[in-house]
Amino acid sequence: MAVHSQPARPVMLGQNQYGKAENRVVRVTRDGATHHIKDLNVSVSLSGDMDEVHYSGSNATVLPTDTTKNTVFAFAKEYGIDSAEQFAIHLARHFVTSQESIHRARIRVEEYTWDRIATSEAAAGPAGPDEPRHSFVRSGRETRLTQITYDGSSWEVVSGLKDLVVMNTTDSEFWGYVKDRYTTLPEARDRILATQVSGRWRFNWTGDEQKAPDWEESYEQTRTHLLRAFAETYSLSLQQTLYRMGARIIDHRAEIDEVRFSLPNKHHFLVDLEPFGLTNDNEVYFAADRPYGLIEATVLRDGCEARIPVDLSNL
Amino acid sequence: MAVHSQPARPVMLGQNQYGKAENRVVRVTRDGATHHIKDLNVSVSLSGDMDEVHYSGSNATVLPTDTTKNTVFAFAKEYGIDSAEQFAIHLARHFVTSQESIHRARIRVEEYTWDRIATSEAAAGPAGPDEPRHSFVRSGRETRLTQITYDGSSWEVVSGLKDLVVMNTTDSEFWGYVKDRYTTLPEARDRILATQVSGRWRFNWTGDEQKAPDWEESYEQTRTHLLRAFAETYSLSLQQTLYRMGARIIDHRAEIDEVRFSLPNKHHFLVDLEPFGLTNDNEVYFAADRPYGLIEATVLRDGCEARIPVDLSNL
Amino acid sequence: MAVHSQPARPVMLGQNQYGKAENRVVRVTRDGATHHIKDLNVSVSLSGDMDEVHYSGSNATVLPTDTTKNTVFAFAKEYGIDSAEQFAIHLARHFVTSQESIHRARIRVEEYTWDRIATSEAAAGPAGPDEPRHSFVRSGRETRLTQITYDGSSWEVVSGLKDLVVMNTTDSEFWGYVKDRYTTLPEARDRILATQVSGRWRFNWTGDEQKAPDWEESYEQTRTHLLRAFAETYSLSLQQTLYRMGARIIDHRAEIDEVRFSLPNKHHFLVDLEPFGLTNDNEVYFAADRPYGLIEATVLRDGCEARIPVDLSNL
Amino acid sequence: MAVHSQPARPVMLGQNQYGKAENRVVRVTRDGATHHIKDLNVSVSLSGDMDEVHYSGSNATVLPTDTTKNTVFAFAKEYGIDSAEQFAIHLARHFVTSQESIHRARIRVEEYTWDRIATSEAAAGPAGPDEPRHSFVRSGRETRLTQITYDGSSWEVVSGLKDLVVMNTTDSEFWGYVKDRYTTLPEARDRILATQVSGRWRFNWTGDEQKAPDWEESYEQTRTHLLRAFAETYSLSLQQTLYRMGARIIDHRAEIDEVRFSLPNKHHFLVDLEPFGLTNDNEVYFAADRPYGLIEATVLRDGCEARIPVDLSNL
Repeated sequence: MAVHSQPARPVMLGQNQYGKAENRVVRVTRDGATHHIKDLNVSVSLSGDMDEVHYSGSNATVLPTDTTKNTVFAFAKEYGIDSAEQFAIHLARHFVTSQESIHRARIRVEEYTWDRIATSEAAAGPAGPDEPRHSFVRSGRETRLTQITYDGSSWEVVSGLKDLVVMNTTDSEFWGYVKDRYTTLPEARDRILATQVSGRWRFNWTGDEQKAPDWEESYEQTRTHLLRAFAETYSLSLQQTLYRMGARIIDHRAEIDEVRFSLPNKHHFLVDLEPFGLTNDNEVYFAADRPYGLIEATVLRDGCEARIPVDLSNL
Repeated sequence: MAVHSQPARPVMLGQNQYGKAENRVVRVTRDGATHHIKDLNVSVSLSGDMDEVHYSGSNATVLPTDTTKNTVFAFAKEYGIDSAEQFAIHLARHFVTSQESIHRARIRVEEYTWDRIATSEAAAGPAGPDEPRHSFVRSGRETRLTQITYDGSSWEVVSGLKDLVVMNTTDSEFWGYVKDRYTTLPEARDRILATQVSGRWRFNWTGDEQKAPDWEESYEQTRTHLLRAFAETYSLSLQQTLYRMGARIIDHRAEIDEVRFSLPNKHHFLVDLEPFGLTNDNEVYFAADRPYGLIEATVLRDGCEARIPVDLSNL
Repeated sequence: MAVHSQPARPVMLGQNQYGKAENRVVRVTRDGATHHIKDLNVSVSLSGDMDEVHYSGSNATVLPTDTTKNTVFAFAKEYGIDSAEQFAIHLARHFVTSQESIHRARIRVEEYTWDRIATSEAAAGPAGPDEPRHSFVRSGRETRLTQITYDGSSWEVVSGLKDLVVMNTTDSEFWGYVKDRYTTLPEARDRILATQVSGRWRFNWTGDEQKAPDWEESYEQTRTHLLRAFAETYSLSLQQTLYRMGARIIDHRAEIDEVRFSLPNKHHFLVDLEPFGLTNDNEVYFAADRPYGLIEATVLRDGCEARIPVDLSNL
Repeated sequence: MAVHSQPARPVMLGQNQYGKAENRVVRVTRDGATHHIKDLNVSVSLSGDMDEVHYSGSNATVLPTDTTKNTVFAFAKEYGIDSAEQFAIHLARHFVTSQESIHRARIRVEEYTWDRIATSEAAAGPAGPDEPRHSFVRSGRETRLTQITYDGSSWEVVSGLKDLVVMNTTDSEFWGYVKDRYTTLPEARDRILATQVSGRWRFNWTGDEQKAPDWEESYEQTRTHLLRAFAETYSLSLQQTLYRMGARIIDHRAEIDEVRFSLPNKHHFLVDLEPFGLTNDNEVYFAADRPYGLIEATVLRDGCEARIPVDLSNL
């Protein structure tokens, strides 16, 4: 067998974490003939007393990633999935409290939304108590996200969404900007504003002694405020729209202290139809792929500290 | 300059076509403060008298793909976009009738659906006539598809959809199958049945002298029948479910003569929780990625000929 | 339990097939300390006496897709994987000859190429017989493809590749084309020509009594001819380049009778630098995503019949 | 026109940045008949005096993202592209020094590698000085990355790569780990170890007064050390392999102080062939997609501070 002595050490180990990523768990619950589903993608990441596994390959402090996978599926049975947040809290607490070598757990969850398919009978009126209701169509709306971090004493909960695509077909301008040698863009007094929202928001719930938010209600309300702020802002720049979206969430949702958005400006260019003897009165647009503007910012409740990373993770 | 004589010819040119693919056109129409949008991805493919461009590089019969792109955007202005089908019919007719060298045009369209964002005022009741309605969120439901082919005399219209993900959490069995040396699968009396529907349906409208279907109404109705057949079929195999989906469309939609589906069986495996002292009463599933069953079939109106290709195109 | 009688029948079943798609098999063979790997993605598709499974859900003639998956893995052990083609031939023959209800098998394979990682010792000279050689890096060059179809009497073998991206930075022109009302494109006497080749070629080997080609050698030679034809053609249109690529294969590879290519014209637009007081002498290009020209054609040995479908499958 | 007064302010603006992402620039240089290409994807991100654009939509301090795009293409002409790092340094310096309102610039670059296509003549021997050499095939090996950050006084350069897929078919074990109630994994004394390397390394070059590394040479050497450490480590855990890869880079490349890796454990499961009466002596594997182990860590030169973020950005 081969050598596994340590390399000579002018080299240090820094931050490290490990776990099983993208566990695709579907949980069915039954209320008579009515079924409910939760469809999650759960990623586990653990840190702690892990120097030796890096230096010598000793796994004596390592709970296998396969075990973390098993735990996800077992907990779906034992605790059910009331919300992605609640489920991830169960998991994080378990890993940190049950293994001495694990000092911190970070659980990330993607959630996919499903709608019920109306059956022929149901379509004719409200479904009766005995009618089967076990058929679903994936809604395809945005992916809901949460990330729970627990270090044995306090919690950090950052929820959010990605791939929420929105468009205003008017009430957007862009002018009065800096012009240098490389500026050719004409000013715009009426343009399409479209973006694919990636957002994260941090809750001020940090300890078990506090009452936890209603995670499901909080998500739906936050999403609604975000959409309305987008729709109702007369926009002079995407930065301004971003700020209004964040500020509206901070203003209306007392459980949230910090919001960060990453907003690609999905350019819709007005097509020049003059060569064809046609006028284009903001009617026909080319939806471009790349490059795209990218606007990113954090909006904070006054006095709060920013903790969401500058680069939002894709998972 | 370099040589472009023809290679010695024991070699023939077969079927060929060319055009501009994936023109991303967004069309806005305004009804006072209420805006409407159509968001399409249009691909043009032309065939005809094109031997010389292949043999010698002479472009004398070639309308540039760039021109076909311009035509898509100009027609969005000139004709508007009532439906993807109607828009593609305008385009196909134009290419075949305006250029002698073009004998056949095939136009493919992907359509993305957008929902309105309810603003704060609107949310409190029906939107008044003066309230702005120009804000949209992409619905993320399936992608709608159409393909129009025109050869100067008759039309072929094949519409459909892709990425419609559906699930039944019960009323699915699988047993009584052939067993050979390599069979290990246990029979199932109650399983999840889930698939990502890719479907195409061919209309019997072929000529300008016939009244054309209401394309928008036809799509919504066909989609509804497809979903209900999926939801209402007690399934002994995915093949049976597929057939019912197709048969229900043929039965209810007189304008459609042929349907083809490609249905990946998105396996949801019941997780074995026994090692953890837990029972899994059809509650916790692992959603697998690959491999997947793949079930494909055509369903036809009696006496009609099948024309949709065996392999559905992804675009 | 629910009803599964047949629907009233003005409806017929057309072409149908089923199987397990995307079985990801990696086969290791060992020659002392030197290991070899084959990395395949295998999709099985079977047809035959399958009416009842569609009409009534009876699985009496259905070999489960799970069994076809098991067979792929078992055959990797029993027969090894000399080439994707040879492996798929074993599988297709097995399904058709071992099950009465299966009349046709189509096996598709994607193959991923790996290169050896040179170790420190090996790098200093040729690897000695005892040096370990079990480390690989995925090459990332194109994906190799094959499709084997067997109906119990004759074989059809179509091989090919996808995602082979090539570029000529000169020796490409485009002019002399048709101009209509919607034409704005300026003629080009020196442009970049780039494409992402998707190609398929059909072998004239159809029966066990014929000597089969050397599949590995054939692939490497065909790929080389394709690349050289691309590089050595002074191009007046992408159609001309496509034809030369196909003709060169037909000319040089006697085992191949038909070639079809789907070539997206990956536009590289010369950037207008004049506004910045700079000239752009074919030096700086913008690589565009969409839309793209799409050029598709079949090239045939004289007298042969075209059988590769117009739309190349992505798998 | 609509209102754009500021919202009442219990809300603060935090970190923010903006720019044009994914500018796809291809630069051709010509040395007689021999052409050279650089193929980059450049993303610009600027920060500075940007409060007002968020609060009121005033663009008075905003250089448009469109201008940053133009600058990328103009600089490709004015400065050429010796290396992704050098090109990004030019850009970052320009934005910070030419605009008072811009205090920090971060430039990210993806680079795609192309190989020459050997032409028929060239293949017969070394290419002569007059033979055309303007044909390329994209290599498909990993994507090279760099990120340059400049605040007007010091530089941070983090380079790296993604999508480098590697595999050892032996010399990997995994045993001796923690077992809890949810552990079912059997210990392994000989397994496949495969991963898709995402790595970033930070240079200790921070100021113009220091001699800059040879960026091209540094990349090739670092990649080689990474690959060899992977190949030559007899692995008891992926963490150990990760550490060796990082330590070898720190040991051999004096210009690098910090390395971070994110290594998905691409599981290859030994297929159980016993039900078919076959033994599987580490020959046949199933390559799984999800879930996957995910191992992440930083390796540092002794005494240096870690600055690469825990979550590696995908772009």
